Amino acid sequence: MKIGFIGLGNMGAPMARNLVHAGHAVTGFDVNFDQAKACQDWLGVADTAADAASGQDVVITMLPNGAALHQVAGEIMPVMASSSCFIDCSTVDIQTTKQVAEMIEAAGLRGLDAPVSGGVGGATAGTLTFMVGGAADTLELAMPLFDIMGGRVIHCGDAGAGQAAKICNNMILGATMIATCEAFALADQLGLDRQRLFDVVSTSSGSSWSMNSYCPAPDIGPQSPADHDYRPGFSTAMMVKDLALAQDAASMTETNTRIGKLALQIYQQFASQPDHAEQDFSAILNDIKNTPHKT
Amino acid sequence: MKIGFIGLGNMGAPMARNLVHAGHAVTGFDVNFDQAKACQDWLGVADTAADAASGQDVVITMLPNGAALHQVAGEIMPVMASSSCFIDCSTVDIQTTKQVAEMIEAAGLRGLDAPVSGGVGGATAGTLTFMVGGAADTLELAMPLFDIMGGRVIHCGDAGAGQAAKICNNMILGATMIATCEAFALADQLGLDRQRLFDVVSTSSGSSWSMNSYCPAPDIGPQSPADHDYRPGFSTAMMVKDLALAQDAASMTETNTRIGKLALQIYQQFASQPDHAEQDFSAILNDIKNTPHKT
Repeated sequence: MKIGFIGLGNMGAPMARNLVHAGHAVTGFDVNFDQAKACQDWLGVADTAADAASGQDVVITMLPNGAALHQVAGEIMPVMASSSCFIDCSTVDIQTTKQVAEMIEAAGLRGLDAPVSGGVGGATAGTLTFMVGGAADTLELAMPLFDIMGGRVIHCGDAGAGQAAKICNNMILGATMIATCEAFALADQLGLDRQRLFDVVSTSSGSSWSMNSYCPAPDIGPQSPADHDYRPGFSTAMMVKDLALAQDAASMTETNTRIGKLALQIYQQFASQPDHAEQDFSAILNDIKNTPHKT
Repeated sequence: MKIGFIGLGNMGAPMARNLVHAGHAVTGFDVNFDQAKACQDWLGVADTAADAASGQDVVITMLPNGAALHQVAGEIMPVMASSSCFIDCSTVDIQTTKQVAEMIEAAGLRGLDAPVSGGVGGATAGTLTFMVGGAADTLELAMPLFDIMGGRVIHCGDAGAGQAAKICNNMILGATMIATCEAFALADQLGLDRQRLFDVVSTSSGSSWSMNSYCPAPDIGPQSPADHDYRPGFSTAMMVKDLALAQDAASMTETNTRIGKLALQIYQQFASQPDHAEQDFSAILNDIKNTPHKT
């Protein structure tokens, strides 16, 4: 297929690279000249987003936020081939996703929202999970590309459902990670060995991906960022972004998400300290541990 | 073995019954005359706690709170046979557990704190999990009894470590359940189908025992209290108790457990409404769903 790929950052570049390696004709663009230049050895790079999108069968976007998506969508839609497919893999606010979906429909194009989980590692290895919103026949059309870039595709429903699934999942994740870290901090204070806490919780009703697969305490459980100086993994900045998107959606819909809201506040405070934003989000264990709380 | 069993409530009675069925000589006591009377067909019932404990190889207590444990411990220790073993299976505050452990040591007795998980169902079926604090050789001695009453025994460390593990686990559990319910409420508002949310989260980084094994939404995932009108299971009242014990321990040790604290407040508010305390703790989904939140 002829593919335009817009957004060649830490995630987009390896995703585009996997498409190129699989034999697709990919034209890339990034508003950041250095990022675009870094891909020139293996990718045809266009001068504008519109140039990258013009006449392609599929345009994929991987952008940092809703404002960037809105702008790119406005630039490329007028030049996209009729019936071509616009796949947005960014994680952005639901409102922008739904607005873009309406623009796509009005323009007679096909569209999917398909945010990912799996991070830079998954993007490089081609093992991302795609959470997809949009029509089933459009998904079927795009499936060969998802198969190249990812290991798993979940059709979550109509336009916006992919974004909704991602922020709901990550809201749970952020809150569960904090609760797990609080339990480690409390265990420390009570003289309960961390390994024993892991042995109990990981096999009991407190078990979770945060504890069992991504343990925030070093030297416990399977290898995780805690065993590598909290290099991400999934950065604290990304967790703040996703928790904020969840709270935007909750505010917009007047949904009761008090734990999710507090999780955002706790991660915002953590991220505001020097160097913490780029640490893995499980590094919040040390912050919780080092911040005694008087009642 | 000759066993005294003090506390013949919803949990204690079936635990004692399993010991009787296994051929042990059990003498029971309960301060509530009706509860004691209900066991008289299959259990020798004593008139006082001291009578039940006097001359036994092992005394097991299953009591509602630290005050009850403190009182019973004071009554029975003077009459317990030297080197006999005091196994407390209650879930109580860490301070009382540690005080009782000191009393046991001063009296030349052996002791274990061994709170359980698994509820009335596990107590009846003999499949409880015991989280045990105390000396390894005492645990070895008591192991045949744990094997009768339970399916799993985890040695968590010295005196108090069993209680610590239980409240740490249940603090994570309460917070994770609320976060999971908030995600269902948000999904509803965003038009994301609940089954699709389950499909994504249960196989992703938001997965947990609360979502995967005990899904709070009816007709989704394995059978859970949600599929049976939220009959417990694990009651909201018990969750409030355990979250409060965790916060007691956190206050005492000045540990930062902000998510755990909010989880307690949310469950206290839920439990204060008519009939909610005796519903399963996963019923909080309906409360979250029915309480729009304006920011």
